Amino acid sequence: MSKLNDQHIAAALQAYVDAVSGDDVEKILELFADDAVVEDPVGTDAHVGKDPLRAFYQVAVDSVELMELDGSVRTRDKWGAAGMKAHVKGVDLVMETLDVMEFNDDGLITKMTAYWGDKNMVAK
Amino acid sequence: MSKLNDQHIAAALQAYVDAVSGDDVEKILELFADDAVVEDPVGTDAHVGKDPLRAFYQVAVDSVELMELDGSVRTRDKWGAAGMKAHVKGVDLVMETLDVMEFNDDGLITKMTAYWGDKNMVAK
Repeated sequence: MSKLNDQHIAAALQAYVDAVSGDDVEKILELFADDAVVEDPVGTDAHVGKDPLRAFYQVAVDSVELMELDGSVRTRDKWGAAGMKAHVKGVDLVMETLDVMEFNDDGLITKMTAYWGDKNMVAK
Repeated sequence: MSKLNDQHIAAALQAYVDAVSGDDVEKILELFADDAVVEDPVGTDAHVGKDPLRAFYQVAVDSVELMELDGSVRTRDKWGAAGMKAHVKGVDLVMETLDVMEFNDDGLITKMTAYWGDKNMVAK
């Protein structure tokens, strides 16, 4: 029986931003499948699997003071997508990203693609 | 020389919501490449090419009173993504979607994927 539904996906995206805000890399990793693929930002080399994800997210939590949802989480079938604002540590900048996540039947993220670029670094 | 840059993509997404709001199907189609693929919502059969897109967007503009961006447009390389709110005609409902668009070097949309589901139909 699939654990996957709109409520699960919306809760997972909230848990994701909360874990980034809490500098909790292991909590972030618990949301992902073992062979998950993270492409952040879109078009760059993907990070694949738990160890590369651990390294990637350690850098992320070291540079992000607070991460919050920007608008509602969009959910359908195995997909969740949401705007997010990452408040950068030590400077008055917010990175506005938009993350699309694909889930498996166990409710774990198998693919995350983050859409953001230079123009999405904005003053607070 | 590629017409593609962050400014062009952000302007194209604004032009898209404006054209939907203005019931201007031909203006919408001008933003797309001839062989463009529209998957709306994600996971459903795609509409491919100008005639199928014309039919799809005629239904869309007939049901949407006003479409507006929800948050900033995220841009990188050949991608643009943004939250959008579609105010449905005749009822007090807003459909909150999140559209990811891929562009070609001519600055035309080659792929649009819309992320939204039942939970994203909300009261105004």
